[in-house]
Amino acid sequence: MPNINEKPVILSEQVQKTLANLEPLSRKVFLSLDPPSPMDNRADVDQVRQTLERTYGSVNVPLSLMSKIPSLCRSADWQVTAILADTGQSWKLIDLEQGDTTREQYGLAIDIGTTTVVVYLINLCDGTVMRHAADYNGQIAQGEDILSRIRYAAEPGGLARLQKAVVDTLNNLIRRLCPSPMETDKITAAAIGANTTMIHLLLGLDSASICRAPYTPVVNNPGLISAVELGIDIHPLAPVYCLPSIGSYLGGDVIGGILVSGMHTQSDVSLFVDIGTNGEIVLGNEDWLVACAGAAGPALEGGVTAFGMRAEPGAVDHVAIDPVTGQVQYTTVADMPARGICGSGLVDTLAELFLNGIIDRTARFQKGRDEFVVVPVQASAVGKDIVVTQIDINNFMATKGAVNSATDLLMENVGCAWQELNCFYAAGAFGQYLPIESAITIGLYPDLPRSAIVRLGNSSGEAARQVLLSRSKRLEAEGIAAKVTYFELNANTAFMEKFSGSKFLPHTDLDRYPSVKRRLQTRA
Amino acid sequence: MPNINEKPVILSEQVQKTLANLEPLSRKVFLSLDPPSPMDNRADVDQVRQTLERTYGSVNVPLSLMSKIPSLCRSADWQVTAILADTGQSWKLIDLEQGDTTREQYGLAIDIGTTTVVVYLINLCDGTVMRHAADYNGQIAQGEDILSRIRYAAEPGGLARLQKAVVDTLNNLIRRLCPSPMETDKITAAAIGANTTMIHLLLGLDSASICRAPYTPVVNNPGLISAVELGIDIHPLAPVYCLPSIGSYLGGDVIGGILVSGMHTQSDVSLFVDIGTNGEIVLGNEDWLVACAGAAGPALEGGVTAFGMRAEPGAVDHVAIDPVTGQVQYTTVADMPARGICGSGLVDTLAELFLNGIIDRTARFQKGRDEFVVVPVQASAVGKDIVVTQIDINNFMATKGAVNSATDLLMENVGCAWQELNCFYAAGAFGQYLPIESAITIGLYPDLPRSAIVRLGNSSGEAARQVLLSRSKRLEAEGIAAKVTYFELNANTAFMEKFSGSKFLPHTDLDRYPSVKRRLQTRA
Repeated sequence: MPNINEKPVILSEQVQKTLANLEPLSRKVFLSLDPPSPMDNRADVDQVRQTLERTYGSVNVPLSLMSKIPSLCRSADWQVTAILADTGQSWKLIDLEQGDTTREQYGLAIDIGTTTVVVYLINLCDGTVMRHAADYNGQIAQGEDILSRIRYAAEPGGLARLQKAVVDTLNNLIRRLCPSPMETDKITAAAIGANTTMIHLLLGLDSASICRAPYTPVVNNPGLISAVELGIDIHPLAPVYCLPSIGSYLGGDVIGGILVSGMHTQSDVSLFVDIGTNGEIVLGNEDWLVACAGAAGPALEGGVTAFGMRAEPGAVDHVAIDPVTGQVQYTTVADMPARGICGSGLVDTLAELFLNGIIDRTARFQKGRDEFVVVPVQASAVGKDIVVTQIDINNFMATKGAVNSATDLLMENVGCAWQELNCFYAAGAFGQYLPIESAITIGLYPDLPRSAIVRLGNSSGEAARQVLLSRSKRLEAEGIAAKVTYFELNANTAFMEKFSGSKFLPHTDLDRYPSVKRRLQTRA
Repeated sequence: MPNINEKPVILSEQVQKTLANLEPLSRKVFLSLDPPSPMDNRADVDQVRQTLERTYGSVNVPLSLMSKIPSLCRSADWQVTAILADTGQSWKLIDLEQGDTTREQYGLAIDIGTTTVVVYLINLCDGTVMRHAADYNGQIAQGEDILSRIRYAAEPGGLARLQKAVVDTLNNLIRRLCPSPMETDKITAAAIGANTTMIHLLLGLDSASICRAPYTPVVNNPGLISAVELGIDIHPLAPVYCLPSIGSYLGGDVIGGILVSGMHTQSDVSLFVDIGTNGEIVLGNEDWLVACAGAAGPALEGGVTAFGMRAEPGAVDHVAIDPVTGQVQYTTVADMPARGICGSGLVDTLAELFLNGIIDRTARFQKGRDEFVVVPVQASAVGKDIVVTQIDINNFMATKGAVNSATDLLMENVGCAWQELNCFYAAGAFGQYLPIESAITIGLYPDLPRSAIVRLGNSSGEAARQVLLSRSKRLEAEGIAAKVTYFELNANTAFMEKFSGSKFLPHTDLDRYPSVKRRLQTRA
């Protein structure tokens, strides 16, 4: 089992409480039916359906269930529990159980990342997360990033293998959450947050057009699909809902992030940023939403530096440099001997190097130095100094510069100034684990009042939980998808200008970072 | 191929014209889509769905179709035809075809009788019957009547064999109507009229409870089922609609008969009678409908008399006795040498025997005679006289008496007098082929003005055509099903009293048959 600490899996209590009324995608209804008599000899299926329709409106009963109903009703002495799936316009009966089983209602909230897959087992009675499990996406063997997966999918049999890989990952996680098949059958709904390519590969749809102009996906809003059609080992007729995407580069995971942030309901303008293998930036409020996206590179996932690693045991995750002695203090994940540096350690290191004047505002080492020893060889588990080099810093600055440039362009484009920003929402690992002060110091986060910086955790997973539990959240997600305007960065020559001009610490325009400016003045 | 002339298969032109607007169960919509561009790079599936939703409201696209849409749209230069199934609350996309194929829309109207199955190929563009084909129900090998089929279904593997038998019959008929599989795939909807047992056996549902108190079917209104679920060889996703039934003894064929008659829309009270292997009687108007049913016996299907036969070549189908010479004149089906007597021939013979005083009002031969020669040996193809015996007549009188008694009871029960009847609707073979005057003479039909006696032909098949073509007719059929009150004959001791008192020609109360009374007086 790989350790996947880098992926935030805990959904904040505060966010969990925002759902007013539970309207889960599937729900159980206890029925106390009348045994047929000469006075009431309605057909069994009709009695079940009519009883449900008194509360739920039109209810469809599939043929595959009809033959089961008469004997089940009789052996249960006409006390049964119906399981309904919410199809939006009407309801579908997906199963009938003996007695009152309304207290056992389970669903899955699923986050399928390009790298990591997280499955949350949700209690549909109260909306809480009961357990969760995470693993690497099994498709990694066929390519680390989206583009290589799309290329692999185009090979003969490639799409089917990628589909099987992610379904296998899901089914392994489901088995870890519910060891017995009897249990998994009690999971009667699922919702998925994922980028557009991950959804296409899960659904077995051709993903080639996603990376080919004019970048038209096969589908953005697949609607409800039965678990059995996808091969997911829960109740075969369980409805599976995918958060809708906006296009090839803005997936249901981003829609989910907006949904969880609530920025689309506020009159003030907020900024949403999710930097993982890909980066997405959304700016807007209740009236408008504009977004851009691009490959972010692995800067924050440990893949860019000489000693970069994921936040696994032995990764340096926090760094401080004593301004007086120049001594380095650090912590590692699980307090194991240091093996490398993860994203949060790198951000800390850069901030400390900058604040202590070891690198300048252009992120270059002073006095001809070309690396900095974070962990000396005698404390290292890898037999040599663990260092950050000028090349490491340059690579990181490219990612940071791209994020800054894209954000600046979006804001200029809508005529919004930094001081107008109400909130900065940081999603995913980018939001969960980066040290806020250091991230501001190097300009990765904006210099806003600290209360305006909100970490959303795994907002894709949390959005999946919300749409699993609420019909109005599903409609809200679809409303967001319809409202977002996509802003094409690659088609914009201004982007390259911004990009080359934005490789400063914390930013070309230091006045935009007053707290960093103050701290630099204090230190000086 | 058996000859099945006995089953009326031609739907009257007059009835065919009653549909105001065509709203078929499946319909084709031509779409001129926009090729994706940087300005409009919506997902392909979403563009198809959104274009349809502008006119049709919510449209569901099944996963199985999604992967087909991108390549089809491109190779068709974005000129495509969508095939939609009307699910009542919303629409389901069941296929997409290249170019404009809206002129090729076909459906099936199906009448599954216990004895005979008729399939009509309907042009969904104009609602007309293009072709039809009929055959014996393949289940006959496992039992002639409903009860024996239900018993057979309870044996191990019995239900599956009966289901396969009727599906095979349907598929053979479909192949006769559309010899190439490419053609059958163009059939995108079907509607079925059948009794409750036939629907259960077609759907593979346990039929045991139909004949066991309290006579509760598994389902009365199965809703829409995909053709592939039933194994019917048309477009796999074609919706199949079964006319709803009211209970074990009043099936969709009877609902269909009421629908076609229109009696449920009239302020005056009418009577609907369908006598086949089973008999059903419905009385009512726009405010109320009351119905009863029972086994009618094979009196009208050629199975009750010594020389009884179906209306196959050589069956005596019309008989007259010269009142002066006493000479018998007859015709046979296909003008072939006489081999037996079919239902219409028997009704003619009884009427003529009665009018000529050869049998009396109690239907007994006069002067010690105990049979009547219809066809003498020298004209017969079976080497002996073809006769009607006293036993034949008694058997027939039992059926007639049951019909009369049941009708009388229904009418008394609601306090309706014969002269109040607006119309008498005769359905099925009972309505199509019996000679009206003879049927009135022997009291099988009521003695109403002849314009008030309406033959509905194959009203089960015609009702299937109507619900195939019209959403409002489907709602109307479901409204009828909800309105009919079932009147239990077996539970009624008055029935037996009526029954024993009603074995008269034309009826115990001759004054109810004024035209017959006048004719008897004229002859005397």
